[in-house]
Amino acid sequence: MTGKKRVWTAALVVIGDEILSGRTHDKNIAQIASWLQVQAIRLAEVRVVPDTMEAIVEAVNALRVRYDYLFTTGGIGPTHDDITVDAVAEALGVKVVIHPQAREDLENYYRDKPGGLTEARLRMARVPEGAELIPNPKSGAPGLKWGNIHLMAGVPGITAQMLDALTGTLEGGDPLLSETIGCWTAESEVAGILRDVEKAHANCQVGSYPFFREGTVGANFVIRSTSPTDLQSAIDTLCDALGAAGLDFTPGGI
Amino acid sequence: MTGKKRVWTAALVVIGDEILSGRTHDKNIAQIASWLQVQAIRLAEVRVVPDTMEAIVEAVNALRVRYDYLFTTGGIGPTHDDITVDAVAEALGVKVVIHPQAREDLENYYRDKPGGLTEARLRMARVPEGAELIPNPKSGAPGLKWGNIHLMAGVPGITAQMLDALTGTLEGGDPLLSETIGCWTAESEVAGILRDVEKAHANCQVGSYPFFREGTVGANFVIRSTSPTDLQSAIDTLCDALGAAGLDFTPGGI
Repeated sequence: MTGKKRVWTAALVVIGDEILSGRTHDKNIAQIASWLQVQAIRLAEVRVVPDTMEAIVEAVNALRVRYDYLFTTGGIGPTHDDITVDAVAEALGVKVVIHPQAREDLENYYRDKPGGLTEARLRMARVPEGAELIPNPKSGAPGLKWGNIHLMAGVPGITAQMLDALTGTLEGGDPLLSETIGCWTAESEVAGILRDVEKAHANCQVGSYPFFREGTVGANFVIRSTSPTDLQSAIDTLCDALGAAGLDFTPGGI
Repeated sequence: MTGKKRVWTAALVVIGDEILSGRTHDKNIAQIASWLQVQAIRLAEVRVVPDTMEAIVEAVNALRVRYDYLFTTGGIGPTHDDITVDAVAEALGVKVVIHPQAREDLENYYRDKPGGLTEARLRMARVPEGAELIPNPKSGAPGLKWGNIHLMAGVPGITAQMLDALTGTLEGGDPLLSETIGCWTAESEVAGILRDVEKAHANCQVGSYPFFREGTVGANFVIRSTSPTDLQSAIDTLCDALGAAGLDFTPGGI
């Protein structure tokens, strides 16, 4: 087999007023992005939207048809502001129903806890009709999978467990490989070199990420490719060119 | 004056493959969200898109007409992958030109630096025709303002300086006030209380943010309103109800 293989893509909708207010620093974007890299699925777009039906429905419908997979985080808990299930059901045009297994799991989880399975807690067994459960051993409230849509928790530690449960279950493409070269130089000094490396390697993307540290400027150059050969060739070309320009560089990045 | 005042809104487009790959943890969403709160402007939507013309143009055109203000971060440096200026110019249907003041600022900044004002560095003086500069004392490369669009740096420390330069220059509405009450309880225990508080206070939004800490569950309840009176009334109602349920709570949050 030769030629370009299919690239699998995903989008993420982060649902939460607390992110948009600046109160909470989102950790799910980076967590899900890193996890998708390992699954060889490319995160192509993220939207952060408020806890309103209209905003969630619009984002879900815009993205679920456009990418292979859609993830959401947030809004699947027991309180009145947790409306993700209702919004996704509306987006899909299906009813909200109680999932028998989710109900049983919650009954077991809350059996020995004060209050038991209250009406509010039972909200967490509500699913868009046809959804499967994504196990969540930590709090008894499951994530949900409906077609290509995956509803995950807002609390990053719970989402981590749901991602563990999904690991290896989603079809992906060739993994996107990357190598980083760090250099204590202003990126503007080497802009021509970077451009030339990218032009000469059609299967590679070259990114430049400048920083200020210890009172001086530097940059990390990241080359990404699904082809290990092309990636190595681009790295070699870059290192040769940096060396020829009299610059020290650090494989692996600074 | 009585009645509801106008709410001013903003959207943010985070431009960067490095965020979507999980390599870099975004800090600009929280930074700009918090800054907008102080300006009494509500961040209503965020999109994270890759470094491609098509994705940036689409996001900019979708959001600039929908909200009062649009911010972008990333892609305004000197390297080949910095294409935000070109993409925004395309979205606006204007040319890319060299801004005389930006050129002069860069000449001054690079006068004593090795290499001087190279062609790559001069890229940072390119602007969508008609743009004004947002000063950036840290690196000489300015942010840009074109109508309601504000192009900021990807490096959070530089964006912080650009935000300082913008502080107080954008019209906003009544500031959105918030108060937090923390409680060592499962949010599912008090879901009914929270729902009732929100129902009884039409001008307030009540959010519930659960956490696991020190081996036990808790939640912070955040009430937001533009009315100090309504906010205080909702907080009083919530605290009374938590007290009546036998729960200790911590004003200011846990």
